[in-house]
Amino acid sequence: MNSTTSELHPLTRFIEALKDSPRESKFLSEIEQARAVRALLEVDLSAIRHNVHVISQLSEGAKLMAVLKRDAYGLGARVLARLLQSCRVQAFAVDNVAEGIELRASGITEPILVIDGDISENAPLAVAHNLMPGIPHENLLLAYERAAERIGDKYPVWLVANVGFNRSGYRDIERFTHFALRARECQHLEVKAVYAHLTNSNGDLQISLAQIEEFRQVVSRAKALFGSGIETSLFASHGLVRWAKMFPTDWVRPGILLYGEHAFLQDSLALETSEAIQKLRPALRLRTRITHLLDFTHSEGVGYGQQHVTRPGQRLATVSIGFGSGYPFRSTKLHALVRNHRVPLFGDVGMDAFQLDVTDIPDIELYDWVTLIGTDGDEHISVHSLAFDAETTPYQLLSGIHCCRSYVDSGDIFL
Amino acid sequence: MNSTTSELHPLTRFIEALKDSPRESKFLSEIEQARAVRALLEVDLSAIRHNVHVISQLSEGAKLMAVLKRDAYGLGARVLARLLQSCRVQAFAVDNVAEGIELRASGITEPILVIDGDISENAPLAVAHNLMPGIPHENLLLAYERAAERIGDKYPVWLVANVGFNRSGYRDIERFTHFALRARECQHLEVKAVYAHLTNSNGDLQISLAQIEEFRQVVSRAKALFGSGIETSLFASHGLVRWAKMFPTDWVRPGILLYGEHAFLQDSLALETSEAIQKLRPALRLRTRITHLLDFTHSEGVGYGQQHVTRPGQRLATVSIGFGSGYPFRSTKLHALVRNHRVPLFGDVGMDAFQLDVTDIPDIELYDWVTLIGTDGDEHISVHSLAFDAETTPYQLLSGIHCCRSYVDSGDIFL
Repeated sequence: MNSTTSELHPLTRFIEALKDSPRESKFLSEIEQARAVRALLEVDLSAIRHNVHVISQLSEGAKLMAVLKRDAYGLGARVLARLLQSCRVQAFAVDNVAEGIELRASGITEPILVIDGDISENAPLAVAHNLMPGIPHENLLLAYERAAERIGDKYPVWLVANVGFNRSGYRDIERFTHFALRARECQHLEVKAVYAHLTNSNGDLQISLAQIEEFRQVVSRAKALFGSGIETSLFASHGLVRWAKMFPTDWVRPGILLYGEHAFLQDSLALETSEAIQKLRPALRLRTRITHLLDFTHSEGVGYGQQHVTRPGQRLATVSIGFGSGYPFRSTKLHALVRNHRVPLFGDVGMDAFQLDVTDIPDIELYDWVTLIGTDGDEHISVHSLAFDAETTPYQLLSGIHCCRSYVDSGDIFL
Repeated sequence: MNSTTSELHPLTRFIEALKDSPRESKFLSEIEQARAVRALLEVDLSAIRHNVHVISQLSEGAKLMAVLKRDAYGLGARVLARLLQSCRVQAFAVDNVAEGIELRASGITEPILVIDGDISENAPLAVAHNLMPGIPHENLLLAYERAAERIGDKYPVWLVANVGFNRSGYRDIERFTHFALRARECQHLEVKAVYAHLTNSNGDLQISLAQIEEFRQVVSRAKALFGSGIETSLFASHGLVRWAKMFPTDWVRPGILLYGEHAFLQDSLALETSEAIQKLRPALRLRTRITHLLDFTHSEGVGYGQQHVTRPGQRLATVSIGFGSGYPFRSTKLHALVRNHRVPLFGDVGMDAFQLDVTDIPDIELYDWVTLIGTDGDEHISVHSLAFDAETTPYQLLSGIHCCRSYVDSGDIFL
C-alpha cells in the first residue's frame, strides 16, 4: 500500500443496505469497528485501477468482462463492481443468479454473465434481473425460452462450448451444432456470443493451442449459424496475458489478474508473460494482531494435541486470526512478517488463533500488527507464495478469506 | 432429518436487520431463493435440543455455556442462541467482541463470555454491550479496569489460567497468583470465575489428568484469593463427556457437541464415552444439485490442469458447490450420496463446482439433489468422516462452510 493512502470506511456485505435502519446500522458499525482491530484484509483500489489498465493493454481491442464470482474472490463484489464500471470494464461475470442479483441490488446496470447458467428454477429470477446466462445444455436453454416468453423481447444469452474443460457444455462439434440449432429456433432468445474455458492457460502450451484451435472451429460453426455478428470469448486471466493479441476475441474475462495475482506455473512462463505479470500491482494486504506473548523457560507442548514442543528460551506470539477466517490450515511451511522480519509459524493453526516464533525479534510488543499477505520493510508474502506454501491455490486461499475488509485508495494515476 | 419436518425460512446473516428496508429485503429474499436451490446447509433444531438434553445429563449439576464462536461454527449464531436460550443454556461464549455484539444485536441478554478477551481497544465496546471478558494477561486486565471505571458498578470478568494450552494465560502458578492479585486490586472489576483449556480432551488420558490436576491447584489458589464463591470452568465438548461428573465444575462449555458432532480420536475412546456420543443426534445436512451430466465415449482430460482422465463409457455429474463455499479442497478420498448410492468424486474440487462419477447410477437426472453431509437411504456421511477423508478436522470443515442455511424443526420431544 502507498504511504499517501486515505482510508475509506470498512464495509460489510450489506452495510449499505442498512442505512435506512439506524438501530441495526449502529450495531453493524460497532461490529466492524471491533473486527477491524483484530484482522484486516486491505484492498488497494488504485492498484486494481492500474491492473485494469495493464489488462487493457494486454488484450488490446477486446472488451473487458470482469469476473466477480464468489464475492470477487472474497474482495467484495459490490465495491469492486462500482470501481470497475468507472474504468473501462463493460460487463461482469458471476457464478450464479444469486451473485448476479447482488450486483443488481447495488445498482450495477452493465451486462452480467452467469457463467454456465445455474439451475433451471433460477431462470425466471435471472430474467427478472436482466442477467445473461451462459447456456451449457438444452434443458437450461428451454428454461430460459420459457422465462423469456413472459417479457416479450428477444432475451440475450451466450452459449457454452466445451473445448476440453469437460465440466459443462457439449464437446462434440456436431452435438454442439445441434444444440446451437435448437437455440436458434428459440423465439424468445437471441444468441449473442459463444465462449469456452481453457484448462491449462497457466501452464502447458500445447494443450492450450489445441483448445484454441478447437474453439476457432466452434466459432466458425457459430458464425455460419448466427451470422458474423456473433461475439466470442475464450481467455480469462492467464489466457489473456499469453494469447489475447495473438488470437483476438471480442471479450476477455479477467478475474484474479485484476488483483495483481495469478496462478501461473513459473516453470512454464515465456519471457514476455513474465514481463507482463510484473507490470501488475498486488492489491491485497492481510494483517492481524498479536494478542498474547508467551515466554518458555523450558520445553512444553503447545496447542491442541500438544504435538509441537517449545525449546527453552523460546518466545511465541499468538495472533488473532485462524482457519475460521480462511487463513490456511496447513502451517508447517508458513511465515508471517512483523517489525520488518520474516518469522515462522509455530504449531497448528486454530480456528481463531495461531502462533509465531518471535524469539529473535527483541522489540516485539503485545498488539503489534503482523503482515500475513503483503509487504513489511524489505519482506513480501504474495498470495501466490502463501498458497504454494500452504499446499493450496491462490483461488482457494483468496475465496476462503472471510475477515473485515478495508478499501484504500492512494489516488495514484496509472502510467 | 425427519420426515415430519416443517421448513423455516432460510436466513442470511443480517436478513432480520433488513426488515425495515423493503427494497433491500426484496433483493435479499430473491438472493436467498436463488442460492437455496443450488446448495443448502440444513440445521435440525430439534436435534440440537436433543443434544442439549444429552449434554445436561452428561454434565449433571454444571451450568451450560454454549460456545457460538465463528458464527456457531458456520451454523448461525443468532438463530442458535435463540434456540438455546429456550432450553437450559444459561450463557454463551464467543471468540471476540464483534461476535458478542452480534448476539446482543439479536436480542440475547444472557451472559456472554469473550474467550481469552480480544484486543484492549475493544474493551470499551465490550463493556458497553455487557460482554464478559476472559482475561489472560495484565495488559487486558487494566484495559477493562479503565473501561469499567466509566460505568461505576463492579464489572464481571473471568480469569484465564494456562494449564498447558500455552496460547494464552500464565502457566506458572506463582505468576498466575501475582496476576490474580492484580485483578483483585482492580476497583472496578469483579472476578467471577477462573477457567482453562484442555489440550487433549479428545485423546490422550494422562495429559488430560495432569492438566485437570493443575487446574485444581489454580482453583484452590483462586478460592484462597477470591473466596469460595468463585466459579470454575474447564471442560468443553470432549472434556465434559469424559470428566464432567468425575471432576465437577460450575460451567461446562459445549460447542461442536451441540450439533451432534465431535473430534474424538476413535482409538482412545472408553466404552462409556462411545456410548455417550452415540446418544447425540447429527444436526447437519449439506446438499447440492447436479447441474451438468457428461458422458464420455473415450478418454479425455477433465477440469483445470487436465490431471484426471476419463475412461470410455464414464458418466460424470457436475454439482453446484465447491471450495469457494467451504467444501474440502482435497478430493481424492471423498464421496457423496445420490439416489441412495455412494459415489466417488472425480477430479479436483473447483471454486463453485466439482464432479462425481455417476456411471453406475442408471436413473440419475439433471438437477438431482446430492448429499455431501448426512443420510441418504442406508448411506451416511458424517462431518467427522468427511473431515477425516479430506485431511482436515470437523472444526475446519464446519467453520469453512458458507452456503445458504435452512433451519428445520421436527418438533420432536426428546426422551
